[in-house]
Amino acid sequence: MNSNLPKNNDFKNLLRRGVAEVIVEEELLSRLNKGDKLRLKEGFDPSSADIHLGHMVGLRKLRQFQELGHEVVLIVGDWTAQIGDPTGQSITRPVLSYEQVRANAETYMQQFFKIVDRSRTEVRWQSEWFGKFSLADVLKLTSRFTIAQFLAREDFSKRFSAGKPITLTEFIYPLLQAYDSVQIEAGVEFGGTDQKFNLLVGRELQAMVGQQPQQIVMTPLLIGTDGSHKMSKSLGNYIGVSEAPEQIFGKVMSIPDRLLIDYFTLVTDVSESELAEFNQELENGTNPMGLKKRLAREIIAQLYDQEAATMAEDNFVRLVQNKETPIEIPEFHIELGLQSIPTIMHEAGLVKSKGEAMRLILQGGVELDGIKLTTPNSEVRSGCILKAGKRRYLRLVG
Amino acid sequence: MNSNLPKNNDFKNLLRRGVAEVIVEEELLSRLNKGDKLRLKEGFDPSSADIHLGHMVGLRKLRQFQELGHEVVLIVGDWTAQIGDPTGQSITRPVLSYEQVRANAETYMQQFFKIVDRSRTEVRWQSEWFGKFSLADVLKLTSRFTIAQFLAREDFSKRFSAGKPITLTEFIYPLLQAYDSVQIEAGVEFGGTDQKFNLLVGRELQAMVGQQPQQIVMTPLLIGTDGSHKMSKSLGNYIGVSEAPEQIFGKVMSIPDRLLIDYFTLVTDVSESELAEFNQELENGTNPMGLKKRLAREIIAQLYDQEAATMAEDNFVRLVQNKETPIEIPEFHIELGLQSIPTIMHEAGLVKSKGEAMRLILQGGVELDGIKLTTPNSEVRSGCILKAGKRRYLRLVG
Repeated sequence: MNSNLPKNNDFKNLLRRGVAEVIVEEELLSRLNKGDKLRLKEGFDPSSADIHLGHMVGLRKLRQFQELGHEVVLIVGDWTAQIGDPTGQSITRPVLSYEQVRANAETYMQQFFKIVDRSRTEVRWQSEWFGKFSLADVLKLTSRFTIAQFLAREDFSKRFSAGKPITLTEFIYPLLQAYDSVQIEAGVEFGGTDQKFNLLVGRELQAMVGQQPQQIVMTPLLIGTDGSHKMSKSLGNYIGVSEAPEQIFGKVMSIPDRLLIDYFTLVTDVSESELAEFNQELENGTNPMGLKKRLAREIIAQLYDQEAATMAEDNFVRLVQNKETPIEIPEFHIELGLQSIPTIMHEAGLVKSKGEAMRLILQGGVELDGIKLTTPNSEVRSGCILKAGKRRYLRLVG
Repeated sequence: MNSNLPKNNDFKNLLRRGVAEVIVEEELLSRLNKGDKLRLKEGFDPSSADIHLGHMVGLRKLRQFQELGHEVVLIVGDWTAQIGDPTGQSITRPVLSYEQVRANAETYMQQFFKIVDRSRTEVRWQSEWFGKFSLADVLKLTSRFTIAQFLAREDFSKRFSAGKPITLTEFIYPLLQAYDSVQIEAGVEFGGTDQKFNLLVGRELQAMVGQQPQQIVMTPLLIGTDGSHKMSKSLGNYIGVSEAPEQIFGKVMSIPDRLLIDYFTLVTDVSESELAEFNQELENGTNPMGLKKRLAREIIAQLYDQEAATMAEDNFVRLVQNKETPIEIPEFHIELGLQSIPTIMHEAGLVKSKGEAMRLILQGGVELDGIKLTTPNSEVRSGCILKAGKRRYLRLVG
């Protein structure tokens, strides 16, 4: 028996912590135990270049596999990005020029390789194969799948039942992602749980063309700093991996206490026994300030180094904590969009009347996300912080 | 007013006789009245090269439009024929080689130009545009149509409800046909009533890309010589336009009386007033023999000439009629496939017992479609003629 190989137990932990679902776990364990060198597929859409902590969950898992000797294949969706949304109706799929795609890919990779080992990564550009894909290739690909199969995908079936239009193109995109798997002979594909259908199509297509079907590792979705929605750039509730250490520290300190264990589990390496301790502390009612600082340091140390983490903490203590900003800010649920701030302040009990709120605003005593308000109506997004006077804080949640 | 232009009434007749539906009739009438020169689209699938009277209904309509100065664009589906059915499961879509496609197209055009005016026809090969169609082109095309639109097509919706698989490819084929219309800037597309959905997709796509949407002329389906099914090569109930005049004459004489008026209406130029007379004669119980001969002559004169028609009739009278073959053969409904001929003969009352039938067969006195039977069991197709002894005839119908 080769004692250098990790034991089955280690593999099991690799496939549990920070993993929502594995398809098929026994198959993947068996390939790991045999010592197969696996090609780990990760896709990247260059229409958005920034990586945040939500992505880090999956990238850390890639890194853990790399440390066992496996190789990442990063697929840059340059071809799709240059096509955009052919209907021209989606703002999330803008058409990018060749130069924009290259620039975004550059930015992305700078961030990607903060977490993933560059020396064990092969970068492939989708246009290598789709640039010369013919109509005959398309028909061959589409002939392998049925309309009913695709309508079974949850979001499609919901939209179909609701009478909302689904274009034929939307049925083709998952096939292109699946074809990527065939092209690079993926061994394991990584993705969020919301990608399950597409990941399975890849597995199916590989089997159809006679390749060993890829294993699938789905990572859980990380809740954003607002404490209520999946972390995402468009919601503004994210912590970007390229943000300055001080920014990251501050944002981590602002997450709701109830997310602490999730964050430790998904984006740090603290041991299982420490996790159990932390959990106990929180249940005992210990002030979570210390744990939050530890979490912030753990994250910054991964993205920068230990020194940057220490400096960020010092900075936080000096600038924020000594001014006694409360770390645990109460949440208040509101309608998002353009809202009357005096009404919110009154309903939340920050002031005795709307008139008092209005006066406070006119005196420059009300801030929304650190910006002084000058008018009563303001655009409110989920997770933003309202500060009235010196000490009264609210986290507005949609 | 230009007296050379046909009057509105003539156009109306052009769009009524031999026409099942026009989309949109007022639009087409208005384009005809304005004197627009129209491009008449006709598609041809080279996987089957032979033209029969069923196709002639539409081709005659093309010819009538040509005589008003319009131009036919014949689209040879060479690209699709060389792809075949990518699933490999359809026997009606074999993959053809380049040489087979060219040979079939040659045969087809020899027959096509018996009816359509070659000097007013442009021949286009689908591979001109689909040979260089890219994946980006496919996505642009598919983004214009929704899954729900296609599932509304009757045959798709039936198969979907019945849980029968529909591949994604089948949703793409109608788009390719529609794209042909855009490519040649079709003015009017011709097709059978069973093509309605696909013809409408062409109209829609043209409007989307800013072309004037094509008009659609749908021709009715001609019933075959068996009197019960749509004329088709695979059912064997067809009269081919390249068959010898004698063969055509004989086959026309064998159609059921009740189809006579349909055939006169759809595949001959006899006038409306004559049609009314024929109808009256048949209602009065006049022997239809004379009308059938007239029909056969009309058809042969179009495909060959008047002399060939006369010779075919003489031949028929000499060889068949003087041997007193009955022209009106009684029909007998049976199960198709391998059947016991003595059972059929007995049930139809041609013989008193199965034993008598068996003896007659062994004496060489029973023929199926002119071939002497030697065994009691025989393959029976719809419309075939069973002859027992010298005078007893039956048309077997499924």
